Amino acid sequence: MTTRNDCLGRDAQDPLAALRDQFDLPDHVIYLDGNSLGARPKAALARAQHVIAQEWGHDLIRSWNSAGWFDLPKRLGNRLAPLIGGADGEVVITDTTSVNLFKALAAALHMQAGDPARSGRRVIVTERSNFPTDIYMAQGLSGWLERGYSVQLVDSVDELPAAIGADTAVVLLTHVNYRTGYQHDMRATSALAHAAGALIVWDLAHSAGAVPVDLNADGADLAVGCTYKYLNGGPGAPAFIWVPRRHQERFRQPLSGWWGHAAPFAMAPDFAPTDGIGRALCGTQPVVSLAMVECGLEVFGQTSMAAIRAKSLALTDLFIELVEQRCAAHPLGLVTPREHARRGSQVSFTHPHGYAVMSALIARGVIGDYREPAIMRFGFTPLYTSYADVWDAVEILRDILGRKDYNVDAKRDAVT
Amino acid sequence: MTTRNDCLGRDAQDPLAALRDQFDLPDHVIYLDGNSLGARPKAALARAQHVIAQEWGHDLIRSWNSAGWFDLPKRLGNRLAPLIGGADGEVVITDTTSVNLFKALAAALHMQAGDPARSGRRVIVTERSNFPTDIYMAQGLSGWLERGYSVQLVDSVDELPAAIGADTAVVLLTHVNYRTGYQHDMRATSALAHAAGALIVWDLAHSAGAVPVDLNADGADLAVGCTYKYLNGGPGAPAFIWVPRRHQERFRQPLSGWWGHAAPFAMAPDFAPTDGIGRALCGTQPVVSLAMVECGLEVFGQTSMAAIRAKSLALTDLFIELVEQRCAAHPLGLVTPREHARRGSQVSFTHPHGYAVMSALIARGVIGDYREPAIMRFGFTPLYTSYADVWDAVEILRDILGRKDYNVDAKRDAVT
Repeated sequence: MTTRNDCLGRDAQDPLAALRDQFDLPDHVIYLDGNSLGARPKAALARAQHVIAQEWGHDLIRSWNSAGWFDLPKRLGNRLAPLIGGADGEVVITDTTSVNLFKALAAALHMQAGDPARSGRRVIVTERSNFPTDIYMAQGLSGWLERGYSVQLVDSVDELPAAIGADTAVVLLTHVNYRTGYQHDMRATSALAHAAGALIVWDLAHSAGAVPVDLNADGADLAVGCTYKYLNGGPGAPAFIWVPRRHQERFRQPLSGWWGHAAPFAMAPDFAPTDGIGRALCGTQPVVSLAMVECGLEVFGQTSMAAIRAKSLALTDLFIELVEQRCAAHPLGLVTPREHARRGSQVSFTHPHGYAVMSALIARGVIGDYREPAIMRFGFTPLYTSYADVWDAVEILRDILGRKDYNVDAKRDAVT
Repeated sequence: MTTRNDCLGRDAQDPLAALRDQFDLPDHVIYLDGNSLGARPKAALARAQHVIAQEWGHDLIRSWNSAGWFDLPKRLGNRLAPLIGGADGEVVITDTTSVNLFKALAAALHMQAGDPARSGRRVIVTERSNFPTDIYMAQGLSGWLERGYSVQLVDSVDELPAAIGADTAVVLLTHVNYRTGYQHDMRATSALAHAAGALIVWDLAHSAGAVPVDLNADGADLAVGCTYKYLNGGPGAPAFIWVPRRHQERFRQPLSGWWGHAAPFAMAPDFAPTDGIGRALCGTQPVVSLAMVECGLEVFGQTSMAAIRAKSLALTDLFIELVEQRCAAHPLGLVTPREHARRGSQVSFTHPHGYAVMSALIARGVIGDYREPAIMRFGFTPLYTSYADVWDAVEILRDILGRKDYNVDAKRDAVT
């Protein structure tokens, strides 16, 4: 049986342990919600202060050039690219995940419409269990095109092969499910889509910085994702979009703002897309929030996704093992796959009073979150979570469940 | 003839003079580019520090509720609304001006398509001199709808009455032109559009915080705008969109993300728009950049748009008068209307070497900017610009022109 001392021993051997020091985490908190909002890199405060006081306050308008504000979406995109298997010039950090998804889906439909062999395809296939905004954006786009596009929802991964067919224009999947932590096989599913003549768009919201991703090697067509979860970019920090070089020339999207123009300051009255990844840009970006994204990426520069993945699996394995051993008397149901290849960096358990139990955990300093129906989510972020944290979190959970120390009538707050 | 002492006398009588103290402006700079990037309210630094250190770093995910992050777009929208003649619950601060323009145009086309008497209208009328991104977004939207929509560009204000006709679905105008400072008559032009059965969308990028705007009283249908110019919200701060109550029920837009859903945390697989202004929202917003917008709005809460307008006209009148008197020997051409009602809060002059002269001005600490062709822009922001600043700026301009102290081969940087 694993003991707390075993956990302390593993922490002492952990090659990532020192990175925790680069994050500002409150005392008496075990933070298992980095899958929703990543913790704050200490460097982010000084970075923001510099941008606000010096670049904005002192240098004013000149900072668009002198501080490189114009280049931030591309420069930071290049820093992020290696974490997801993208190349230089294939990623920009900009706008929101929802807006980028709209661009990606629109561009994918446009590519298909431009291919005579595929121009009749009118269906976007996705999962009913996908994060709702992905479905909503697909519905918004397809409804507005009014050329008979529709969104088809499949109820399980097993139904995907049958659902992807001759009428499928685009397959839209979130690589790691926000609720269950299920991880798709990107290579196999991309191949499945391609074999049927479809393109595939991946949402990496719960993947980037969480699990190794190799977009180019695995044959993805387009991808979007989030910087404020595992990448620790700050609350609501701008999202990213990846367009591989092989698709850039055909990439067109309707949010054709001046930042995507070939000559934004020529002030010409007709839109002409710039070459390369810049055509995924639209309007002026929130510089302070955007600049802080770099502080999160800098931490990743000190390790590797392989090292992060190894620890992530060790932490999630340990959590599953300890919960199943030490809370065996309680009605907890594991939702997340045991198989490593199918698991993201979170563990979800159901409990009949999941919301109440999670509220009690949060009150005791173990911060996870809750998702309908009855699911408690625990995110494990190897950059700042220790093995002892896992032990302590399970002990507090065991204590709460054993004493039924939770309020089943707890008022429900929204938690993102 | 006006003297510098006269200017100092006017500063001594200026009821807004004390507000300058709330801004951080560098020494030895006369900042006449608040029409592009507003100066920094001193309070913005502490606000950002609090959001980053306390709300993000310490309170973490809980801040979505406890710090009111979810409500920021609406709460700050309500603070902005009085400055533009909007009511409570009619404005949100979110996304970029370009993205909001896409939503507004799409919604306006949708409203027209839903009216049997107007459903055949297929033209968006705007000005060739409009800010390019407005034209590009209209082109992007109309091109993607592929139901025969098109964008018609008029070459002058005088052509608008003839251009707006039975095929016009929407008129899209920027209230104050970014280049010339020309201000449209919002009431008359809105009435002109309505008389022809069209809807009108106003871009307030150079109006909000610069000139009095009364959207509801003047019959506007929809509006968007920018918070980082005259509103001093910070570089690239999120933009705003106004949807009057009378249009909210029919307001539909294709960027249907989860923040616009009636029950975002129910995680239902079908999009259902929330009631009210919330349906103009899409995805998660950049909290730090968004929160700082409030610091700019707080300064406006200490005065009135009437007082700001009075000083703005006095400053721009003075600048025109002094340039025409003291630089009369030089080939400067006034582009901005002399008529108060047609003038925004900037003054533009052409000069054959406009770019070089502006570069020389900036090197001497007088920061304006340049726009093709040959236009030097000078923005006047009554919250932090003094009459003596105007005098001193003109003296430096006179000195540069008199000594031809500018480099006609100056390398051109992009300046937003």
